[in-house]
Amino acid sequence: MILEQVQLSVVPGREEEFEHAFDTARHIPAAAAGFRSLRLGRCVEQPSTYLLLVEWDTLADHMEGFRNSEAFGQWRGLLGHFWDPPPTVLHFTDQVRMGDPR
Amino acid sequence: MILEQVQLSVVPGREEEFEHAFDTARHIPAAAAGFRSLRLGRCVEQPSTYLLLVEWDTLADHMEGFRNSEAFGQWRGLLGHFWDPPPTVLHFTDQVRMGDPR
Repeated sequence: MILEQVQLSVVPGREEEFEHAFDTARHIPAAAAGFRSLRLGRCVEQPSTYLLLVEWDTLADHMEGFRNSEAFGQWRGLLGHFWDPPPTVLHFTDQVRMGDPR
Repeated sequence: MILEQVQLSVVPGREEEFEHAFDTARHIPAAAAGFRSLRLGRCVEQPSTYLLLVEWDTLADHMEGFRNSEAFGQWRGLLGHFWDPPPTVLHFTDQVRMGDPR
């Protein structure tokens, strides 16, 4: 399992519109091969910042499968114009898990 | 529920030592009031970077309860010297959840 992390800076004032668009767009990665789960959070300290966490079976499922697909173009078409600057994507392998995640 | 996100830059070359110290230190927040879960990941693209995600019942459980406690001093004593620069802590409220998290 690999965790994709993206910190999204939404253009201030467009947060509500972004969340509305995300509600449609979220079904796109969720339909991709290797998708496991998705979580979007909004930042308390910087309310125009969002944290997107996506679990994939493998790094290739995200970087080769999803990002080279037509579906990725649709995803970026729906959401990309809300982000300034464009986000940086990082991937993490699990080292430690504890407790009872919600 | 609130999600604490911390991106940790470990001094290059000290990753293994940090992971060993973390294995002890992780029990400290896990024993705090309001703790729900913890997850530590290691970055694929930047192997000295780690992602710490902690779920708390409330923001106050983390910022007032844990960070003002003696236990937080122990946590920082065990781990703080591995981090350069000191990390920025952000908190996120859940907007969207999908799929079946591992």
